[in-house]
Amino acid sequence: MSNLNLVERVDLPVDRIPERWYNIVPDLPELPERYLDNATGKPATQEYLERLLVKAMAAQESSIERWITIPEPVREAYRLWRPTPLIRAVALERELGTPAQIWFKYEGTSPSGSHKLNSAIAQAYYAKRDGHQKLITDTGAGQWGSALALACRLMGLDLLVFMVRASFHHKPYRRYLMETYGAEVRPSPSETTRFGADLLRRRPDHPGSEATAVSEALECVYDNEDARFAVGAFANFCLLHHTIIGQEVREQLAIAGRTPDYLIAPVGCGSNLGGFAFPFVHDKLDGADITIIAAEPEACPTLTRGEFRLDFADASGRGPGVYTYTLGHDYVPPPIHAGGLRYHGCAPLVGLIRREGILDAVAFAQTDVFRAAALFARCQGYLPAPESAHAIKAAIDVALECKRTGRAATIVFNYSGHGLLDLEAYERFNAGTLRDIEEEDFVLPVPAPLASAGAGL
Amino acid sequence: MSNLNLVERVDLPVDRIPERWYNIVPDLPELPERYLDNATGKPATQEYLERLLVKAMAAQESSIERWITIPEPVREAYRLWRPTPLIRAVALERELGTPAQIWFKYEGTSPSGSHKLNSAIAQAYYAKRDGHQKLITDTGAGQWGSALALACRLMGLDLLVFMVRASFHHKPYRRYLMETYGAEVRPSPSETTRFGADLLRRRPDHPGSEATAVSEALECVYDNEDARFAVGAFANFCLLHHTIIGQEVREQLAIAGRTPDYLIAPVGCGSNLGGFAFPFVHDKLDGADITIIAAEPEACPTLTRGEFRLDFADASGRGPGVYTYTLGHDYVPPPIHAGGLRYHGCAPLVGLIRREGILDAVAFAQTDVFRAAALFARCQGYLPAPESAHAIKAAIDVALECKRTGRAATIVFNYSGHGLLDLEAYERFNAGTLRDIEEEDFVLPVPAPLASAGAGL
Repeated sequence: MSNLNLVERVDLPVDRIPERWYNIVPDLPELPERYLDNATGKPATQEYLERLLVKAMAAQESSIERWITIPEPVREAYRLWRPTPLIRAVALERELGTPAQIWFKYEGTSPSGSHKLNSAIAQAYYAKRDGHQKLITDTGAGQWGSALALACRLMGLDLLVFMVRASFHHKPYRRYLMETYGAEVRPSPSETTRFGADLLRRRPDHPGSEATAVSEALECVYDNEDARFAVGAFANFCLLHHTIIGQEVREQLAIAGRTPDYLIAPVGCGSNLGGFAFPFVHDKLDGADITIIAAEPEACPTLTRGEFRLDFADASGRGPGVYTYTLGHDYVPPPIHAGGLRYHGCAPLVGLIRREGILDAVAFAQTDVFRAAALFARCQGYLPAPESAHAIKAAIDVALECKRTGRAATIVFNYSGHGLLDLEAYERFNAGTLRDIEEEDFVLPVPAPLASAGAGL
Repeated sequence: MSNLNLVERVDLPVDRIPERWYNIVPDLPELPERYLDNATGKPATQEYLERLLVKAMAAQESSIERWITIPEPVREAYRLWRPTPLIRAVALERELGTPAQIWFKYEGTSPSGSHKLNSAIAQAYYAKRDGHQKLITDTGAGQWGSALALACRLMGLDLLVFMVRASFHHKPYRRYLMETYGAEVRPSPSETTRFGADLLRRRPDHPGSEATAVSEALECVYDNEDARFAVGAFANFCLLHHTIIGQEVREQLAIAGRTPDYLIAPVGCGSNLGGFAFPFVHDKLDGADITIIAAEPEACPTLTRGEFRLDFADASGRGPGVYTYTLGHDYVPPPIHAGGLRYHGCAPLVGLIRREGILDAVAFAQTDVFRAAALFARCQGYLPAPESAHAIKAAIDVALECKRTGRAATIVFNYSGHGLLDLEAYERFNAGTLRDIEEEDFVLPVPAPLASAGAGL
């Protein structure tokens, strides 16, 4: 008889939604470098940031306050799906035969399907409050775009989304979801911007990347005085908004009577790693034995193979210049299924903790990630987004290492979103054709753009 | 400033998962008629039922015990996602300007996406316990198939699913999900059974129906001594398993300090209406002023336009004969997007309470259903399955009637599953082409099969 003891769960009551966002900046060994205004070559002014961003966001970006109170309407909206559960993957542990405990924070309960809604609601709220009519943004696989589309609909704002072309075609359901919420969605590169049209002229089959989508979104913001750019990852304020994840995890682990030995999150740019792990960083700095691991794709190995230096945040070089890990802003990652991880750089705050040795990083091949995802789905039922599956793969590897060493460690990973709209990728995995795609991907020699990227600035 | 007070929620702790299933049979004004064995024309014997069904299911089908204890392993598995939340759709109420409260039981949190997992886990558990290696079933839109695929994977059973051809093509993602869990999925009609091959010979573009899929599944069960048929709706035991929904709702409403005035569920065959509403039926029989409403598609109006009589449960007539509301077992509903509602009949227990005047019924056009679904998604974020959207449409109609009369009623509907794998249908709605499809559907004169159905027996 199979064992149907599948999970242990820690649910929090709705009044335990955190009241404040946690800002890691004052707790870091040093302050992040300021953004550069590429037009002047000088540090970006507040005026520069406020032309791009909603004013409140520009202010939060430079804040050195440790705790920032969540506006009550935003906290009210969080009650739609928060707090999210912390779940112990008992069936997966049994399958692996590991003495370790594997816990995951399940952010896939949000109506848009991922953690991204945490920041989307905050950004839409402030945009409305500050009198804007329209937000413009980029999205990779569409998790951020879906979240912002819902948030804008709730706030009565217009939204234009540039969706990376590879995902626009491979993940049509996320586009349909955005459109159902009322957003306008364009592929990037598109013919609708000067930057996009120019890219397509030079490479008609350009698959796009987060960086090209940012460039097109920024061009539209510059062309429209009333619109502002909404940021799905990267920015300090975006990571800040997601720290409600880690704060809930702290409380849930305390209820479960566990302290974390490993904290694992996927990283494209860093929003979910930041939100999940930052609230634990000062424990680590105070001496707690916590290993924090970023899981990224081999096809876009920013933290494992990139370098820490000044680079552009977007492909066109019109966005701000920033110090962080980068593969070069002109790096075009192969069209892997984890579209949300196809960004050449990472959030400056994630780059900083990586450089300071606070953050470990691992990179995985796409087939190994899907193998881990399918195993997880078959044990625990929940189908992970390919992005989240990177964290699952890392968690499984650590659990198997614990099996070898006999260590009963507590592994906690962030299950950032469900993969129900990524089922086309699963079907390719089921059919055994995923490996072929991946091998084709790696015809592009991954290190090459690194060598040429130095010319960026 | 938009109002972000979107919901009120009542969550139950995990130890409040019901310990027993509620069997409505002993509380009904009369017992349901026994099934007929069509080979003999006589009432079906236990032996007949046990050849089709897992033994424990055949026993539950005839049970007159009011409460049946849930096996502890099944209850453990329910902890994967249960209890599910009861949510008040505050934003929708505000949008409608109604004095009524609109609550919904959100069954979409299950890993397979709908309430169907409640019975799938129970049936897979008993099949394993009783020594079977394989289950065979039918599925419409794939909600039941996905649930059973996961349940069989958890129990280590093989599964063969016949998926209605219209949905097999229009809802590929549900098929991919079943395959990811490890099930074999075939379209119905298929060339792999005698019944299916014969249908296709006569009508190569046959869209299939729940009834054709049942026929093919039954044929395979008859051909395989070790396999048994798993039932996604219809059977008493299936509705029984879902009564944990209504039991949770009772407790949640009590916590919210409300008593229900309207209980609304979509009906294809009746599994979610039964599970949701049966635990309230004896309150109604005891005099409580509760209106119970079944919401069905105009394209398959079993309860609003069918007749109560003896008919076959499947299209081939090899399955059991049964007394209930039916459109005729040879009725082929047009390929609407709510694939889960395309069944010519309804569960005998649902038919019985309909005949006894306990159950009201309404039927809706597909476009009106999608309009309600999109409004709901834009207000509350959660994207409903087209099946569930029938209940939303009915709830909105009642809420608007309350607005006219000024009645502060408590409306509760069952949100049986999410629509994330139905986004292709939403895209057609967004693009404005859904109406065309529907009008084309209705070129088939809906009442016609009713007139000809009498020849069925």
